[in-house]
Amino acid sequence: MKIDPDRLLPALTWLRTYRRDDLASDLLAGVIVTIMLIPQSLAYALLAGLPPQVGLYASILPLVAYALFGSSRTLAVGPVAVVSLMTAAAVGQLAAPGSPEYLAAALALALLSGLFLLALGLLRLGAIANLLSHPVISGFISASAVLIALSQMKHILGVPVGGQSLAEILPALAGSLGETNPETLAVGGLALAFLFWVRGRLKPLLQRAGLGPRLADFLAKAGPVAAVVVSILAVRALGLAEAGVSIVGEIPAGLPPLTVPPLDAPLWLELLPAAALISLVGFVETVSVAETLAAKRRQRIDPNQELVGLGAANLAAAVTGGYAVTGGFARSVVNFAAGAQTPLAGVITAGFIAVTASFLTPLFYFLPKAVLAATIVVAVLSLVDLGAIRRTWRYSKADFAAMAATVVLVLGVGVEAGILAGVALSIALFLWRTTRPHTAVVGQVPGSEHFRNVERHAVIESETVLTLRVDESLYFANSRFLEQRILELVAARPALEHVVLMCPAVNFIDASALESLEAIADRLDTAGVRLHLSEVKGPVMDRLRRSDFFEHLTGEVFLSQYAAMRALDPGSTERAAGTQEALRLASGQR
Amino acid sequence: MKIDPDRLLPALTWLRTYRRDDLASDLLAGVIVTIMLIPQSLAYALLAGLPPQVGLYASILPLVAYALFGSSRTLAVGPVAVVSLMTAAAVGQLAAPGSPEYLAAALALALLSGLFLLALGLLRLGAIANLLSHPVISGFISASAVLIALSQMKHILGVPVGGQSLAEILPALAGSLGETNPETLAVGGLALAFLFWVRGRLKPLLQRAGLGPRLADFLAKAGPVAAVVVSILAVRALGLAEAGVSIVGEIPAGLPPLTVPPLDAPLWLELLPAAALISLVGFVETVSVAETLAAKRRQRIDPNQELVGLGAANLAAAVTGGYAVTGGFARSVVNFAAGAQTPLAGVITAGFIAVTASFLTPLFYFLPKAVLAATIVVAVLSLVDLGAIRRTWRYSKADFAAMAATVVLVLGVGVEAGILAGVALSIALFLWRTTRPHTAVVGQVPGSEHFRNVERHAVIESETVLTLRVDESLYFANSRFLEQRILELVAARPALEHVVLMCPAVNFIDASALESLEAIADRLDTAGVRLHLSEVKGPVMDRLRRSDFFEHLTGEVFLSQYAAMRALDPGSTERAAGTQEALRLASGQR
Repeated sequence: MKIDPDRLLPALTWLRTYRRDDLASDLLAGVIVTIMLIPQSLAYALLAGLPPQVGLYASILPLVAYALFGSSRTLAVGPVAVVSLMTAAAVGQLAAPGSPEYLAAALALALLSGLFLLALGLLRLGAIANLLSHPVISGFISASAVLIALSQMKHILGVPVGGQSLAEILPALAGSLGETNPETLAVGGLALAFLFWVRGRLKPLLQRAGLGPRLADFLAKAGPVAAVVVSILAVRALGLAEAGVSIVGEIPAGLPPLTVPPLDAPLWLELLPAAALISLVGFVETVSVAETLAAKRRQRIDPNQELVGLGAANLAAAVTGGYAVTGGFARSVVNFAAGAQTPLAGVITAGFIAVTASFLTPLFYFLPKAVLAATIVVAVLSLVDLGAIRRTWRYSKADFAAMAATVVLVLGVGVEAGILAGVALSIALFLWRTTRPHTAVVGQVPGSEHFRNVERHAVIESETVLTLRVDESLYFANSRFLEQRILELVAARPALEHVVLMCPAVNFIDASALESLEAIADRLDTAGVRLHLSEVKGPVMDRLRRSDFFEHLTGEVFLSQYAAMRALDPGSTERAAGTQEALRLASGQR
Repeated sequence: MKIDPDRLLPALTWLRTYRRDDLASDLLAGVIVTIMLIPQSLAYALLAGLPPQVGLYASILPLVAYALFGSSRTLAVGPVAVVSLMTAAAVGQLAAPGSPEYLAAALALALLSGLFLLALGLLRLGAIANLLSHPVISGFISASAVLIALSQMKHILGVPVGGQSLAEILPALAGSLGETNPETLAVGGLALAFLFWVRGRLKPLLQRAGLGPRLADFLAKAGPVAAVVVSILAVRALGLAEAGVSIVGEIPAGLPPLTVPPLDAPLWLELLPAAALISLVGFVETVSVAETLAAKRRQRIDPNQELVGLGAANLAAAVTGGYAVTGGFARSVVNFAAGAQTPLAGVITAGFIAVTASFLTPLFYFLPKAVLAATIVVAVLSLVDLGAIRRTWRYSKADFAAMAATVVLVLGVGVEAGILAGVALSIALFLWRTTRPHTAVVGQVPGSEHFRNVERHAVIESETVLTLRVDESLYFANSRFLEQRILELVAARPALEHVVLMCPAVNFIDASALESLEAIADRLDTAGVRLHLSEVKGPVMDRLRRSDFFEHLTGEVFLSQYAAMRALDPGSTERAAGTQEALRLASGQR
């Protein structure tokens, strides 16, 4: 096998043609993403139940790994909200937050995610992500966002409350409202109000003040940084930590440690389903944003290479004290808008985060957790897409059912139950919809060699030949329907001698459908009717030849439906021609 | 709602037109089926781990119930081998064979099966059985037959051995070979040899002796009765019961008792999956044989009515001390061949079995269990279909994989695990196969308004318009593939201005595919390319109008592909016409 170095290391393609102009753009984008990423990485670690430095560690080597192996030019990888929630849900079942076992399990989860993604990518099985239908993903993200926002209320109120679902969180919150810490609530409430104001009002204000739209946008995006800086100063100056405002405290300074995830088979088995779900959800979201951005510059991404890139990023997280990462939506959009030309922007971001982790962590000592929680709440509430729920309801009740099941179960039971129910239901509803293949009894259009649906066109039908056009591939879920449809049609036509199955749209026939066809042929035979086929595609014919089908087929295979009618009922084709002749004469006389 | 009495009680349709001639035929068929059913009902009860009279009880009222509510004229309902094995597997996990709890659980299982079948029938959800693909069912039946034959070895060797899978039965058998009872083995071995001889050799022998083929066939089918009679006499005369040959012993004489299945919610929950599987497997087999027989006389069966008929039969079994029943393959074929005209034949059989249960049970006192086991072994080995396994391997590797998984898990783990794995795998492989919808880039056939695949025909392509024909419905599993295919095609064509999706074969577009289409439109838009549709079916168009799709669609919807090309690249259509003109001139000059 010849090994293509560009396939092995996609970074070679952009490194080879790297220009000085690109560097300026990548540098600017790298700085801007860093400013956005520092508070986010601390906050999402908090959401995942992990110490703040873990968020920083997950934002260094994983970014470099993705830059080397990913195929998107502008995707910004790192900790994201939904994956952090899923990590908390999976690891929280096995260990207490803050314990060494919890950290170890988070590393193992990142490792398993990485291996799973890598395996899918190398086996080119990325299509498995297609099982997550859009409505299920959309419902999942919206419901998760609500769950995340609610789970952060404990930090904003300053009360100790846990739980994986609405059913657990809401009563616990309600029960501890009395213990609310007023100073914490003041800090959290102010931060929330400020962040919502920045998000909704600052940008138009700045634009009216004469700033360009891009600069105004970036300043608005830097809102969380302002909140972080101001709140650190306020907590320090007012001594709020002593008043019970929970702060981040000491973050160990330094580069990420080298870590070995626990090689613990029972633990791996327990984490595997969660790792698979996290990988798939992360992958779907990543590909979606990466493709959107690539298309804007008429670039292409390779989904299977994305799997490899994300897999490498997660493996990097697992060996450097991080946790599961994926492509972030908002951060990638900012990266793209800031002008990132190549994945070097990500490497630059990683460099700045490494500097932060090495030297700047003491600055975050007085950072209140309530402010981090507020940045999470504001970030995730933009993920709630009620419009999608409404649109889906209007467009398709089946899709809505799958979406509703996902939302209800995510909120009521937990993230994993929700997404599994959604996937199962969308598959079941799809199978149900395809149990009835589209078929039509056809007749000859007068004066032509075409055959059309007898219910929609004025066509000539034969008394002795019934032609059924099958408009879909035949497989186990719809084969029995075809049996029943044909037997019904035959039972209603006593003069029938031939049945022709017209197969122009049949792309494959599985073993169940093959047996059904054989049963149809045999049953028609005992009733004195012969079965024929027409317009069978080449590959389908090749496969039928590998079976015993032609021992059962009592009739012939015709290349065209017209040839079939000429052979089986020449009178009918003459009648069709005659009708045309008569029409022509009639129109001539007028 | 108008109630049609014939729908409510299908028996009315045949009772109304019943003729004296029919009675003679039904009576003969009823007698012949009774002769076959007596040893079978005793044997299958043994297989299910139940006392022999339960087999008789399951062959009385359930037959009458099916005659009233079923739609097949010739189906013979009662205990069958595979359902008996599944009953033993399900109930054996909850109670010890022979205990009152075991009997009660078997009744509950029949009740749940009945309710499940009835519910499916009344909701007209019979299509759910389509999930059991032919290869999975075929592998399941073959593997179950092997498992049944092996499980009967204990009776033929006279050793106490249990187990639900090969892994349990084989070591247990091997370990207790030393305890084999020689008298039992002699009786069982002789019975086996005799039954195999009857099955394979007797019929041709009788025919050569001058008997008609039908009479020879019936005599050969009566083999088990001969084995039963001779073995009873031999055991009694030779005092074999004292020598350790296990006998049926006292069977309580009398009509079936009225029984109330236990109304025990936890028990129901535990039995529900097994009841659903038993119902579906039984239903699939029933419909298959019923349709084959009905087609021979150009009759029809109604699958949903079959569900009601089988549901009523199982409810009848549950309230009269029986256990789960379904349509028997061999017995139905015999019933048909013996000339049964109406379900009255089944009522007559039920009458004879009732007489047997009331007065003849003392005759079976000395019947050796080894002989019943031998009749089971001989009956089920004819269900093993190695040819089907070979044919499936040759025809389709995907179907073979599902079949192999079923066989391996039935033998290695148990019947339920096997069938569930088979169903899951066949669904997964089907979804996998449909993740890539069939699409083709098309161009105009010179001198026509037709458009064909550019890879298979000499057609005129436009430089500014790309037309992709989509040959399948669009849904979540294949929508992302379409996105990628289009973006790939566009990235390779810098001069492109328009993309036309030609949709003559798209029967539906689900919400995921709709979002993909919107994303395609948006992404093409950012790349300066407009998206158009052509030949969209009416129902699909109606549904699209209920969505925001037309806010995203940058182009138009054309009624025909030709109209699209005329509007978007008139030069190309003229070129296609010109080519034809040139060809015509060239052929004219020759």
